[in-house]
Amino acid sequence: MVHRFIKILVLHFSLAIAIISNCAAQDPTQYVNPFTGTQDMGHTFPGATVPFGMVQLSPDTDTIPFYENGEYNKEVYRYCAGYQYNDSTIVGFSHTHFNGTGHSDLGDFLVMPITGKVHLNPGTSSEPEKGYRSRFSHESETAQPGYYSVYLADYDVKAEHTATARVGIHQYTYPPNENRKIVLDLFHGIYNYDDKVIWSTLQLINDTLVVGYRQTQGWARDRKVFFAMAFSEKIQAYGFVNEKPEKYRGFWYNLNQDEPLPAASGKKLKAWFQFKPSLKMPTINGNDLNSQREPIPEILPPLKIKVALSAVSQEGALKNLQHEAPHWDFEKYRADAKNLWSAELSKITIEAGEKIMKNFYTGLYHAFMHPVIYQDIDGKYRGIDQGIHQANGFTNYTIFSLWDTFRALHPLFTIVQPDRTSDMINSMLAHQEQSPYNLLPIWSHYSNENWCMTGYHATAVIADALVKNIIGIDTAKALHAMKRTAWSPHYGQNKIYRIRGYVPFDDGAYSVTKTLEYSYNDWAILQVAKMTENNKLKRALRLRAENYRNVFDPETNLMRPKMHDKTWRSPFDPLSTHGQGFIEGNAYTYTCFVPHDIQGLSHLLGGIQNLSDLLDTLFTLPLPYENYSQSEDIESVGVIGNYVHGNEPGHHIPYLYNYTGEPWKSQAKIRQIMQKMYHPTPEGLCGNDDCGQMSAWYIFSAMGFYPVTPGTDQYVLGSPNIQKATIHLRDNKKFTIEVKNQSQENIYVQRVLYNDKEWHQSFITHEMLTQGGQIIFEMGNKINSKRGATPSGRPYSLSNEH
Amino acid sequence: MVHRFIKILVLHFSLAIAIISNCAAQDPTQYVNPFTGTQDMGHTFPGATVPFGMVQLSPDTDTIPFYENGEYNKEVYRYCAGYQYNDSTIVGFSHTHFNGTGHSDLGDFLVMPITGKVHLNPGTSSEPEKGYRSRFSHESETAQPGYYSVYLADYDVKAEHTATARVGIHQYTYPPNENRKIVLDLFHGIYNYDDKVIWSTLQLINDTLVVGYRQTQGWARDRKVFFAMAFSEKIQAYGFVNEKPEKYRGFWYNLNQDEPLPAASGKKLKAWFQFKPSLKMPTINGNDLNSQREPIPEILPPLKIKVALSAVSQEGALKNLQHEAPHWDFEKYRADAKNLWSAELSKITIEAGEKIMKNFYTGLYHAFMHPVIYQDIDGKYRGIDQGIHQANGFTNYTIFSLWDTFRALHPLFTIVQPDRTSDMINSMLAHQEQSPYNLLPIWSHYSNENWCMTGYHATAVIADALVKNIIGIDTAKALHAMKRTAWSPHYGQNKIYRIRGYVPFDDGAYSVTKTLEYSYNDWAILQVAKMTENNKLKRALRLRAENYRNVFDPETNLMRPKMHDKTWRSPFDPLSTHGQGFIEGNAYTYTCFVPHDIQGLSHLLGGIQNLSDLLDTLFTLPLPYENYSQSEDIESVGVIGNYVHGNEPGHHIPYLYNYTGEPWKSQAKIRQIMQKMYHPTPEGLCGNDDCGQMSAWYIFSAMGFYPVTPGTDQYVLGSPNIQKATIHLRDNKKFTIEVKNQSQENIYVQRVLYNDKEWHQSFITHEMLTQGGQIIFEMGNKINSKRGATPSGRPYSLSNEH
Repeated sequence: MVHRFIKILVLHFSLAIAIISNCAAQDPTQYVNPFTGTQDMGHTFPGATVPFGMVQLSPDTDTIPFYENGEYNKEVYRYCAGYQYNDSTIVGFSHTHFNGTGHSDLGDFLVMPITGKVHLNPGTSSEPEKGYRSRFSHESETAQPGYYSVYLADYDVKAEHTATARVGIHQYTYPPNENRKIVLDLFHGIYNYDDKVIWSTLQLINDTLVVGYRQTQGWARDRKVFFAMAFSEKIQAYGFVNEKPEKYRGFWYNLNQDEPLPAASGKKLKAWFQFKPSLKMPTINGNDLNSQREPIPEILPPLKIKVALSAVSQEGALKNLQHEAPHWDFEKYRADAKNLWSAELSKITIEAGEKIMKNFYTGLYHAFMHPVIYQDIDGKYRGIDQGIHQANGFTNYTIFSLWDTFRALHPLFTIVQPDRTSDMINSMLAHQEQSPYNLLPIWSHYSNENWCMTGYHATAVIADALVKNIIGIDTAKALHAMKRTAWSPHYGQNKIYRIRGYVPFDDGAYSVTKTLEYSYNDWAILQVAKMTENNKLKRALRLRAENYRNVFDPETNLMRPKMHDKTWRSPFDPLSTHGQGFIEGNAYTYTCFVPHDIQGLSHLLGGIQNLSDLLDTLFTLPLPYENYSQSEDIESVGVIGNYVHGNEPGHHIPYLYNYTGEPWKSQAKIRQIMQKMYHPTPEGLCGNDDCGQMSAWYIFSAMGFYPVTPGTDQYVLGSPNIQKATIHLRDNKKFTIEVKNQSQENIYVQRVLYNDKEWHQSFITHEMLTQGGQIIFEMGNKINSKRGATPSGRPYSLSNEH
Repeated sequence: MVHRFIKILVLHFSLAIAIISNCAAQDPTQYVNPFTGTQDMGHTFPGATVPFGMVQLSPDTDTIPFYENGEYNKEVYRYCAGYQYNDSTIVGFSHTHFNGTGHSDLGDFLVMPITGKVHLNPGTSSEPEKGYRSRFSHESETAQPGYYSVYLADYDVKAEHTATARVGIHQYTYPPNENRKIVLDLFHGIYNYDDKVIWSTLQLINDTLVVGYRQTQGWARDRKVFFAMAFSEKIQAYGFVNEKPEKYRGFWYNLNQDEPLPAASGKKLKAWFQFKPSLKMPTINGNDLNSQREPIPEILPPLKIKVALSAVSQEGALKNLQHEAPHWDFEKYRADAKNLWSAELSKITIEAGEKIMKNFYTGLYHAFMHPVIYQDIDGKYRGIDQGIHQANGFTNYTIFSLWDTFRALHPLFTIVQPDRTSDMINSMLAHQEQSPYNLLPIWSHYSNENWCMTGYHATAVIADALVKNIIGIDTAKALHAMKRTAWSPHYGQNKIYRIRGYVPFDDGAYSVTKTLEYSYNDWAILQVAKMTENNKLKRALRLRAENYRNVFDPETNLMRPKMHDKTWRSPFDPLSTHGQGFIEGNAYTYTCFVPHDIQGLSHLLGGIQNLSDLLDTLFTLPLPYENYSQSEDIESVGVIGNYVHGNEPGHHIPYLYNYTGEPWKSQAKIRQIMQKMYHPTPEGLCGNDDCGQMSAWYIFSAMGFYPVTPGTDQYVLGSPNIQKATIHLRDNKKFTIEVKNQSQENIYVQRVLYNDKEWHQSFITHEMLTQGGQIIFEMGNKINSKRGATPSGRPYSLSNEH
């Protein structure tokens, strides 16, 4: 369902809330600041893309190699998305990027407009003139949904970009007298290193069309991307250069080396193309020789380039180019891209102060970046088996950062992207079918499994969608795929976990994290198994779902690494992460990671008060400095005690006071996090956006609820920071969240009304949302110790099922 | 047209001619000795293939690397076809080979059956036990058209192979008690070196099916071959090993390394598979415990493997496997392959002595090996642009060794393979359309142009076919492709040749050869241009066809390298080749290379007597020893004076006395060459078979005529060494060559009758052949100085057209 315009009522609440003009309010894209998170840890990129588009065309500001002198170069981490806001040079514009990841890849097919001497190396930030890069400043840089523009000072060139799902659209305005040149670098990449490009090719098809591909070996072990690149003007001169020629040269001397060769292949390919100056002097005819008139020079329109991608083949790239970008009207592409964003962002209309509006829509913008559409216009895609498949009945997607996104991003999609949810899950099921390991994706991108992080969280995403009755998913097929995954002998410590009920610390890294995640994932599969009559499977999964208990140490009252011989691992530092059986969190964080059985956890701890104490400790006991340096994504602004918002394992924790009868503690923490850790500015994210998970946390929290347990139909209540939100659903249905007495001080929920009746539960359900309706939060600056204090209204816990 | 059986009449002529039994005579395959040419220079292989099949599954007897210590290793030349008859070990069996080339590539997907300890390296010939190779002897080795078998002594394994066009069929009989093991080596290759494999993959699809591919960078710069490998039994255990692991390992530690991983990729992949012993002890049921009977062990049938290839994709390989090799009946595949050969070889039935029968059918067998079918079962193929195309209206072929094969092999195909001729030419035209250089193939294989040798001889092949009215070729398209090729700025010295009318010696290697070949090729294009009204083009080509004159030095009366400044290059050694402006021939050889204007050449030389003297000198002036070592393919048995039959530029020369009025000299030379330089034995070829060109020379010469000037419809007469030949043509037509008074001494043609009338010409035409009819040679042991002595009966020369 597409809503082109949102209507935002102007409300006056407090001085802190800026007044929004009616006019501007029509279009949510105005609140998006694509630079948000581009400084330091956010790892977002400001470039042009359409929602879920494969092409994400963005400036790369440096080319730090992944290895330096044969060793991992820590500096590269800053460039996971290619762009760092504090940099002063732009290397060029590449077509594929990750939004907010903590490891990286991509950066395909760098294009750079230049004038003067052709450099084929990027140069360095300190000596940009020695390469093709250029200085720039943020004053002459613009980023909007679907549009990016920058002035390249070294070349006096204005660069503008927009995109379709599979085609990057470039427009370059050069100084009128200069030969216009384009550098194309097939070696450039993100997390690049010398041997990363396995092979690449370039081929001139005619005087305006070039095709090629590159295969890289990095985070994705065997990644192939093809391109077709069309120029709006005839190439006047060009050169294809192989900077790393192979020892074996064959009989290529039989080619005339004085002529530019229209084809090249190798491991380090660069190309340059030259076009006429845009200043075109009129031809003087013989007849005009005596004319008194000054000849009027004509200025040619800006040079435009269309770069279509395909992971299938060069024919696929050409087809995508022809079908998706048939014309040369840059402004039309730009308007189309903007309209796509406007429609997607309008799925939730909100009323709030300007900063919150900006945080919200920037968050929604980032939430709608990944996964990306990963098939050609004709439905062909490259599977995880590197084979070419036809997507029948679904659209294939890639970039599944599931360890992050199962938590809130995919649950958000079940509400505002139900069709894409079905597509994404069908993409995962196809992946499982095609996987030589018979596994659902763990962390997959571009026909590759990168095996990043822990757990098999695709199961949680699938269970969540099925429990919420997302249509278009074959339940039996899904259950089969989940089972194959959980019982796989190949993945992680599945095998030993299956035998012993926990992952022994001496058997592999992150043993506690794995045990807890596997246990939760098994519970998720159980939710789907329950839809069948397979009692044996249900019993097995029910047992596995309780495996979290096997790493709980009653002595320390914390989750703790257990050895093969069932003794607890010593030494044990509950604040520490690295090498301690945990990842991106410590024992406090992970003791709270039993999202499917918080009541059971509470029993283990010795009762609700102990859970409450644990949470209090977590939010107050400061994280020692050495743990900062251990953990990748920690910035002091993102820390409360030893709660680290930049890392995902804690994301549900602020909501857990709803299970201890103290929801006001959750409300305070949630408002604190929203206010302190989200800003619509380059430095505005306190950690990696992680393919939209950080953003999705904000979207939910701003509306007043959060999916603590994906795989249930429940969203646990928090404290909304908006005035009003309307979720536009299928069939013109709406679900409205209205917040009364909203202010910066009124962070405590006094009363909740659902369709005008008082609502006592600590959660709302997916069905309540999707059938349409209204929820009203009444806020105040004092806690209401009555609401949410009794067990009867608490959200789902496996233990309740006993 | 298919003839399953040939009828050979048993004739008794002389003691030298063995008597052939009627029974055996039914099938021409019995005369084929696939070992012919497998020793030393022939560079043929003995393995299993069907006519023009993509899969040519053959033993490789060594793995000499192309580079040793960074330098070209001369020893590798012996292994162009993978096999050397004098070797005593077999490394394994790979699926793709060249027949008779002088440079090499291929050798894909080596399979070796082993027992005992698994070695994944090939070992060395001196210490075979250190690798997977095995000793063997010729006593327990058999090769027949479509079948190869050898006993692998080190493993006590009998290996048998047959093939379909795209599938290699393996059958291995192991000792009964041993675990049966198979090694698959994706690194192995012909002309291999350490960096040759760019990338390769392996994937276990299920317990009997493996797929994968490899991309190599060698003679073909960017070659991709996919395979699907099916086993007749369940794999019991297996291992995929990457022997050259990359520095970047990613998050692959998240896989359980204790389990065999069902997928692998990298630059040096090896795999092993284990199957149960073939001795199967019966299961003893409880009931049988008291049975007095000895349990009778069962012997499982031999292990069979089907390996399908595709240059398109792994799906293509799977499709080829399913459609072309649906069953497991080895003997049926073998019989089918034999029947295909029998049908193809039966296109010419001959009567002759046994040695000649063997030479003839072995020659025909080698002539029908290349080019190979190069498309999937569904018509998809990989083009020279590396794109995937659909072959519409033709079958796509590859392996075009055109510098060799334009001379006699393709002309032979116009007679006995007219449909394939059209397919091959349409493959060349598709190549030209898809080529980034807009060029017809020069020497192409597997979607790659290897740019080997000189000239653009596809033009001669195309002109020859069009002049002979081969149907299914678009003349306009062909002419366009030929023009683009001749006027290409990219290829060879085309550009300077176009400007100056010759290739200056100081402008690049082989300048005289190139000038002469370009000039002949231009004449060939002229033959097609004549079919149009384009007078401008015809004039231009007519001029270019006479460019051979520009490198004729009247001082030395020889073709001689000319400098940029139009002076003749000094020093000048007419017997020398290397660095002298020639390739695989010297000034004598190349002075005779004006196949399109022998009369014009004769005028240049100062008359027919001078041409005759030149020929006499060529056949008598001995080649000094240092020239032997300069030239690759010279064996003393293959030399007459400085005529070197192992190198192609001279192949038409023995026939040139027909232009000097002395055909008897031709007759003597031709018989001498046939008798001395062709033997149906491993050492029986005096030079590389060169994809069938050496063999095609013999086929023609044995029948008494030869295409001196491809691009005309004429075959110049020689001296047949057979008794009778019947060429089976379309529509049940036949052309019969009958030889009267045939004997080893009666080498001189006395009289020729065509359809019972005396034939005075020195040539016959293609039309005479294809309309059916009979030619009778009457032979004697003295020359007939009357026949062929007058100019009126001499074959085509451009000068005649003036």
